[in-house]
Amino acid sequence: MTKKVVLVVEYNGSEYKGWQAQKFGVPSVQENLEKALAVIANHPVKVVCAGRTDSGVHASAQVVHFETEVERKERAWTIGVNTYLPTDITVVAARYVADDFHARFSALSRRYRYVIYSSDFCPAILSKGVTWTYKTLNVQAMKKAASVFLGTHDFSSFRAIGCQANTPIRTILHFDVQQLGQYIVLDVRANAFLHHMIRNFAGVLMAIGAGEKPVSWAKQTLDAKDRTKGGITAPPTGLYFVDAQYPEEFNVPVRPLGPHFLPFVEEPKYELQG
Amino acid sequence: MTKKVVLVVEYNGSEYKGWQAQKFGVPSVQENLEKALAVIANHPVKVVCAGRTDSGVHASAQVVHFETEVERKERAWTIGVNTYLPTDITVVAARYVADDFHARFSALSRRYRYVIYSSDFCPAILSKGVTWTYKTLNVQAMKKAASVFLGTHDFSSFRAIGCQANTPIRTILHFDVQQLGQYIVLDVRANAFLHHMIRNFAGVLMAIGAGEKPVSWAKQTLDAKDRTKGGITAPPTGLYFVDAQYPEEFNVPVRPLGPHFLPFVEEPKYELQG
Repeated sequence: MTKKVVLVVEYNGSEYKGWQAQKFGVPSVQENLEKALAVIANHPVKVVCAGRTDSGVHASAQVVHFETEVERKERAWTIGVNTYLPTDITVVAARYVADDFHARFSALSRRYRYVIYSSDFCPAILSKGVTWTYKTLNVQAMKKAASVFLGTHDFSSFRAIGCQANTPIRTILHFDVQQLGQYIVLDVRANAFLHHMIRNFAGVLMAIGAGEKPVSWAKQTLDAKDRTKGGITAPPTGLYFVDAQYPEEFNVPVRPLGPHFLPFVEEPKYELQG
Repeated sequence: MTKKVVLVVEYNGSEYKGWQAQKFGVPSVQENLEKALAVIANHPVKVVCAGRTDSGVHASAQVVHFETEVERKERAWTIGVNTYLPTDITVVAARYVADDFHARFSALSRRYRYVIYSSDFCPAILSKGVTWTYKTLNVQAMKKAASVFLGTHDFSSFRAIGCQANTPIRTILHFDVQQLGQYIVLDVRANAFLHHMIRNFAGVLMAIGAGEKPVSWAKQTLDAKDRTKGGITAPPTGLYFVDAQYPEEFNVPVRPLGPHFLPFVEEPKYELQG
């Protein structure tokens, strides 16, 4: 009998050309995970994730499902699978889940954090795990600017040219900007995201934080509904997929919000808005 | 006229066979740094560091000196040199210094932090920047055990077989164990260290923290003055060189204590004891 399993997966995306399996020889997180699962399942496995990530983007808690014909203890899908994974991909939770669960289509929202490191010099430690700027950023200005993104809008100005979504309309449920020492963390939850959306938010907010643009530029950009009126697409290095939310009945394992090197960003679990 | 320059250098040691330049083709931090400095100096450069680190060991603030014949602004030795360094080595400060300064011989003390990450699964993010254990550690027991190392002792039990120091006597000036979420950080300052000394401390303290050995085992091990009575040598991944202290007259640049992904370990600067 076919069973469905949900996994929570942490990965360092630095060495991968993104989540999605591609042609032979192009390293992807999906391909590595499918191969490792197939060893344990003893049959080929196809996985579906909550939100595909680009080249160099990380996840502290990507949510994934797959189907299997075999009976295994849940820990076989964590400890067992991890044995066959490279050290930069780790399954941190596994649970059997109802047949109608779907990692992508059942998700009510996704959450990302974008980690900026403001310092005179590019950090050698975690150089591929943060987005470095030598500029000093005004976090209050960034916070104020970010607030205009809250709610339901046409985000055409923050959408990559190649984005394949049917509509540029998205609903931002949460957008916070926090400073922790030299880190500035953008924390964004939405029903779904357009391609490059958070990196394009980061491009605009970093320009505003650096004082190169006024706070009002965020709303101007949003209102323009035109990608060419937006800012730069900020680098992938600072971007982390940190959570996907599902209806409670699926009982998907929940992980403390990452990335783990920012243990103090943790906040009380809030209710789903809207 | 020969001038002396002191540098503060951050590096991620994951991809290097340690600090020290070795035979051709073996990647070292020293060789990369000397090559980059030579480009700016336009002559060969030899560097001396405060404390040589082993393969896979990191530094948030290694202190280095070198001599040069050329006149350059101090920023040429940071921004300029960084242009020629890989992203996992960064010069974060440079200053001209008195002729009698010596990064190794002028140092009054060195300080290291050993970063343990206690979690059910090995972290994919920063996997080479922490030492992972699936065990839950009793930090109070580790703190109590560590206190016996304070002061001047014969540390033969914590000294690698191949250690070339003249004497096993060292003075530990500071030894703290702190918990920050899932991180447990050993923070050790000594006049100097024996080879593998901190990793051998970590081996003993992790066994005590896990409850495999009693707190009294730390003193027993110390008293034995015999490496074979010690614990394992813990992995290099969690070890960071974070500071070297010099007489004030040299005016060596001081950096906040790292590694930077633990911004909250910072503590008030304390006075040199003993």
